[in-house]
Amino acid sequence: MECNDYNITRDLERKNLNLNPLQRGGVLPREAREALHDFGDGYSVCDYCSGRLDEIAKPSISGFLEDLSKFLKVDDVRTTHGARESKFIVMHSICEPGDVIVVDGNAHYTTHLAAERAGLEIIEVPNSRYPEFRVDMDVYEETLKNSIDEYGEIKLAVLTHVDGDYGNLTDAKSFGNFCNKLNVPSLLNCAYSMGRLPIDANGWNIDFVVGSGHKSMAASGPIGVLGMKHEWAETLLKRSPRHTKKEIEMLGCTSRGAPIATLMASLPHVVSRVNNWNEEVELSRSFVAKLEEIEGITQLGIRPTNHDLVRFDTPILHEISKIHPRKGFFLYEELKSRNIVGIKRGQTEWFKCSTYGMSKDQRDYITDSFKEIVEKFAK
Amino acid sequence: MECNDYNITRDLERKNLNLNPLQRGGVLPREAREALHDFGDGYSVCDYCSGRLDEIAKPSISGFLEDLSKFLKVDDVRTTHGARESKFIVMHSICEPGDVIVVDGNAHYTTHLAAERAGLEIIEVPNSRYPEFRVDMDVYEETLKNSIDEYGEIKLAVLTHVDGDYGNLTDAKSFGNFCNKLNVPSLLNCAYSMGRLPIDANGWNIDFVVGSGHKSMAASGPIGVLGMKHEWAETLLKRSPRHTKKEIEMLGCTSRGAPIATLMASLPHVVSRVNNWNEEVELSRSFVAKLEEIEGITQLGIRPTNHDLVRFDTPILHEISKIHPRKGFFLYEELKSRNIVGIKRGQTEWFKCSTYGMSKDQRDYITDSFKEIVEKFAK
Repeated sequence: MECNDYNITRDLERKNLNLNPLQRGGVLPREAREALHDFGDGYSVCDYCSGRLDEIAKPSISGFLEDLSKFLKVDDVRTTHGARESKFIVMHSICEPGDVIVVDGNAHYTTHLAAERAGLEIIEVPNSRYPEFRVDMDVYEETLKNSIDEYGEIKLAVLTHVDGDYGNLTDAKSFGNFCNKLNVPSLLNCAYSMGRLPIDANGWNIDFVVGSGHKSMAASGPIGVLGMKHEWAETLLKRSPRHTKKEIEMLGCTSRGAPIATLMASLPHVVSRVNNWNEEVELSRSFVAKLEEIEGITQLGIRPTNHDLVRFDTPILHEISKIHPRKGFFLYEELKSRNIVGIKRGQTEWFKCSTYGMSKDQRDYITDSFKEIVEKFAK
Repeated sequence: MECNDYNITRDLERKNLNLNPLQRGGVLPREAREALHDFGDGYSVCDYCSGRLDEIAKPSISGFLEDLSKFLKVDDVRTTHGARESKFIVMHSICEPGDVIVVDGNAHYTTHLAAERAGLEIIEVPNSRYPEFRVDMDVYEETLKNSIDEYGEIKLAVLTHVDGDYGNLTDAKSFGNFCNKLNVPSLLNCAYSMGRLPIDANGWNIDFVVGSGHKSMAASGPIGVLGMKHEWAETLLKRSPRHTKKEIEMLGCTSRGAPIATLMASLPHVVSRVNNWNEEVELSRSFVAKLEEIEGITQLGIRPTNHDLVRFDTPILHEISKIHPRKGFFLYEELKSRNIVGIKRGQTEWFKCSTYGMSKDQRDYITDSFKEIVEKFAK
């Protein structure tokens, strides 16, 4: 048979400034590029395996997991195929179909899908709506209490640490503590935080933390992280009665090639960038301030922002699209001609973006470009 | 914090002939090495996504899946995180906890784990035991009929197309046909066949075929394939009522970085090598014949072999280990000094190996090395 041409090339990241928040935390540093090269082949990390991925000594997956648990301040940790798979593992292990869980109103769609796949009912904690869309811990606690009253037992409470729509950072410590008080296991979805900002799972009294290597930990996708309090290890990491070395929920082994090799190689880089998180937030705030100098561009979500992912209302860009010959495509095309990408083609009413890891000059170049585009076309 | 040294380097495959069957089918060809470079970053295939991984047009994942379904002669196909994850998806979608399934006696441990994770009971079809360990289709059909009589309904029958212990190739067509006649959905585990030898899912009347990109399709791990008859698509690919583009069992998207990019880039190479499968089998048989010239080395499993994965009983090597100063380590060390790896350190009573994709000269070098080692030490 003759195969189609799949057009498998990508230079977007090399040749442009990419504002897509999905892409910013998964760019590989040099060390991970080297690991990618060495561990590109299929089962590359399995040369010296004696039956347990998490116990492989060369490369030292066991040493890595030890460091990772220290980094997250969590008792036990495993790698999975992604944050969504980590969430499903928790739900599938500790809940039964028909059980009720509580989830914050800014949850990622994969939290809903993991719950649907596990056959669970979702009670949603509303956010504060426009313009902040804040998930307030008092509202969460109240919703959780009401749900316990109504359903008798709530099997899991899920909080999105930083959501993917507004970049709102939630109060994990308060969440962990009231969940613990109410005897409801807590899961913190750290897909947009783990690898960007400090995580203190035990300090926050969280039962389960999940993260994403490709989203925020400078790893090649797909790979996720699942950390847990030790009391859950017996349930989540239960071994097969037939194959006694193998953990059932992991189906024996999970990520076993370039994703784990790059995640490992990137950890020292990630540890160091997390230490600089405050500077990153300052740069993000200053980026927002400069963009807001344009009349008709306003940041949504909590202000000032506590994250690099920010969402803007952009009525001025929408106005321009109405009179521009290229209609809604003008923004994408104007940015592209300046080697700025990552905002969807045709989108002008609002956008979300991230400048994570970019230099101050690069960020200034982006805000200047927006100013230039608006000045060029606004009436 | 200070990270451990994880020793993340690998030159085993570059500098040695690797006999580990796990590794032979997952070595990347040049095209896939290029894709690995371009798509190394986290969410690299998601630049132009509008909500469905399988519909992305750049790179053309949609075009690739179309080709893949033609290649496997199957109606619908998705990529997953691995063959094991594909098996779990099928079991989780079409079975309920407590249901009974039938599995062949040479099944991979991940078939058992997937069933355990889905809460299923396993009835095992015995193999023919030493020395062939053959899974006979008459025995399978009889076991399946008896199981239907005993349990009323059998929700799934699983057959390992080529097993990982003996490299025995089973009769998929006969299996598909009697399962269909008995009204039991059939799953063929092609982890050691898809990407090595031709698959004809519809011709064999198989409901589900699963494969492994990193094991047999020249892809970076982890990535799996799940093909199905169209009548199952509605169940397995059911969409979320809340997020109507997203498939629940896939948790929205599955493999989304280097693994899928390398699998795509490798497909033309894989299609072409599958066309040469008969030559590969001839080379494997001739490798076996040469190794069997050594007294005390005998191939187990079906003879002559129909696969590159072969298992040998090696009493002569075990005898040597009893008198050699390095005991059981002598074989590993002697081979290593000749740049031959992939047989476990300390193992001498038996081994399994594969020379898949090696040149005739390389294979001859390996058999000559074994002869040399035995001559050097045997009494």
